Amino acid sequence: MASKIEPITTAPTTDELSTRIDRVRHMMEKQQLDYYVVAHTDNVYYLTNFAYIPFERPFFLIIPADGKPMLVVPLLEVDHAEQRILIDVEYRSYYEYPAPAGQTFVDVLEKVIGSNRSVGIESSLSIALQKTIPGNTIVTDIVDDLRLVKSDYEVGRVAYACGVTEQGLKKVFELSKPGTAVATIYSEASKEMMVKTVFEIPDINLLMTKFLAAVWPKSLSAQPHAIPGLFDVLEEGGPNVAIITAQTNGYSAELERTCFLGNVTDEARKLFDLFMKAREKAFEIVKPGVRGEEIDEAVLKILRDAGYERNILHRTGHGFGITGHEPPWIAMGSEHVMEKNMIISIEPGVYVEGLGGFRHSDTVLVTENGCQSLTEYPDSIDDLILPLD
Amino acid sequence: MASKIEPITTAPTTDELSTRIDRVRHMMEKQQLDYYVVAHTDNVYYLTNFAYIPFERPFFLIIPADGKPMLVVPLLEVDHAEQRILIDVEYRSYYEYPAPAGQTFVDVLEKVIGSNRSVGIESSLSIALQKTIPGNTIVTDIVDDLRLVKSDYEVGRVAYACGVTEQGLKKVFELSKPGTAVATIYSEASKEMMVKTVFEIPDINLLMTKFLAAVWPKSLSAQPHAIPGLFDVLEEGGPNVAIITAQTNGYSAELERTCFLGNVTDEARKLFDLFMKAREKAFEIVKPGVRGEEIDEAVLKILRDAGYERNILHRTGHGFGITGHEPPWIAMGSEHVMEKNMIISIEPGVYVEGLGGFRHSDTVLVTENGCQSLTEYPDSIDDLILPLD
Repeated sequence: MASKIEPITTAPTTDELSTRIDRVRHMMEKQQLDYYVVAHTDNVYYLTNFAYIPFERPFFLIIPADGKPMLVVPLLEVDHAEQRILIDVEYRSYYEYPAPAGQTFVDVLEKVIGSNRSVGIESSLSIALQKTIPGNTIVTDIVDDLRLVKSDYEVGRVAYACGVTEQGLKKVFELSKPGTAVATIYSEASKEMMVKTVFEIPDINLLMTKFLAAVWPKSLSAQPHAIPGLFDVLEEGGPNVAIITAQTNGYSAELERTCFLGNVTDEARKLFDLFMKAREKAFEIVKPGVRGEEIDEAVLKILRDAGYERNILHRTGHGFGITGHEPPWIAMGSEHVMEKNMIISIEPGVYVEGLGGFRHSDTVLVTENGCQSLTEYPDSIDDLILPLD
Repeated sequence: MASKIEPITTAPTTDELSTRIDRVRHMMEKQQLDYYVVAHTDNVYYLTNFAYIPFERPFFLIIPADGKPMLVVPLLEVDHAEQRILIDVEYRSYYEYPAPAGQTFVDVLEKVIGSNRSVGIESSLSIALQKTIPGNTIVTDIVDDLRLVKSDYEVGRVAYACGVTEQGLKKVFELSKPGTAVATIYSEASKEMMVKTVFEIPDINLLMTKFLAAVWPKSLSAQPHAIPGLFDVLEEGGPNVAIITAQTNGYSAELERTCFLGNVTDEARKLFDLFMKAREKAFEIVKPGVRGEEIDEAVLKILRDAGYERNILHRTGHGFGITGHEPPWIAMGSEHVMEKNMIISIEPGVYVEGLGGFRHSDTVLVTENGCQSLTEYPDSIDDLILPLD
């Protein structure tokens, strides 16, 4: 068995961030760009450690081919940026949005970039903002592409988030009794995770910290994206799907378990065994060089061959990192090929109206020769039939 | 004095939503559009009552010139949409993102819209999604424009959110003593607001519900967008800026008060009086027909004339509704003209390094002849010197 990945809670070093900026510059050189404009909040955070809510006021990290990165930022956010940013940037603030002529962010962009330069922009940029970028713009997702493969430091950050989800799930299972309301589970388990992280990371960035701990009760478990009512209560039996997600100071993880209160019917046991076979197939074949769509195809084939094609609602998995749902996609139609230090979810599911939903999810690291779950929690049906009292 | 606006907690009627769709169609006709594609989550909510987190899977509400609106939605969200949606739509689901050829959202869009049609799209759409919309696309923000002026129903929904912020602020002030940690205030007051709304709106949509209750302590109050540390504690004196925001089941409000614990220095009192004069000017001049930039100009002139030009960090205000920060902008450079049933914040501020920040914010309705605050809370300095025990 692989050794446990050491969780990391410390902020990135200047070296860690400089390496990321250097990698952006390396791609810029290949693509003959004079500037690369980063506007996606998670990409700015990835490169600087600075998180913000833009509302209507845009922020841009502008990386020139040479020289210091520049942060175009509304005036009232300069202090906030200085609090958190861990790379050396030049601040180019603008007054407000909107602002009088001459004091807008567009004026600043024009001063910083000028005309006739070759400027890379992200495909996530809005049409409205695209029009404000001067120069000859080229759509190229350099930072998204770099984020596909995690550094060892990032793996440690995700491992920390995984530990928090383990504690959250433990709490959820302690609370999961017939008659318990979804609201109770949500508030108690979220609080437990919040308190843990706040005490373990005193300078935690709350803008990059959030928790979800809930149980989709049997009645709703066949609808994985419906939202349980707060006053829905758990009932004896199952399947219930416990969903724990955490973003702890920037990095995300997910841990889900299908569970039963007190007892499990034969029919449910059959479905449990089936999705477990699909899940085991994923753990068996994930390794560097394997394509995302090969994995999904092999995993879902097990469900299809068992006659449950109509009960598949989603792909096998997605990537993890800062955004939480991010590439690589473990899905038919995905262009991604597994590489060492990618982090993905493995979560094939099967959903039967009237019977319920069956799915575990883990946060999984692609290793040199295979993969290793960063979330550690019992997964067998015997471990997941919870006592009634 | 204007009579109090009655708060509303009920979901929109079919009539209310049909009127909104009809207004979209009216604009489409003027602009000769065959389809209008709504992808901004808040705009979809405005027209349907359905909220969702898209992650990487796009959702589109497609309004044809004639016939039923169509909702393009990932397969695993169909049940969730059906739970909440309050207009008659045709569901056009797609399998996944990504998906095998023939089963992607792009395939569905092509089937629904076809080629050679005139298709309106939002300026908030990403470059990546813009490329997937078939037909001759024209960027036009029809729904954003309609949302500028609220219906009476929407005014009642915002009025409800305002009442929640009033209760939140009351709790914050009860807790605000020297030595109290920001974390205590945040958790206790947010919980109070959450409990109130959850009991008053049993079918509340948690995806459209969030609360912030915090005090920017004196040491940080000059930095309105910095984030206080959870373990920062309040000290005697001030100014401290209490910030309460609420989105209650979709509609947003904001209430902020500058306060002092036990005592206020002469210097702080002078600044308090100054920003209050600027704020009173705004309440005095806001009425239909007045331009957003006229208001901002007149309000900030008071701060400038008093010699505090360098201490202005932001405009006078912004609009309220579903998004929270939304047009109309009460700002220099704004194109907006006040109309009856617009809802705006009035929140001029002055920020002096070393001394602190001074700002109240209220959620204000533009009425037939003037304006009326929907947030009701004492605003005088005598009311805002809080007792030390």
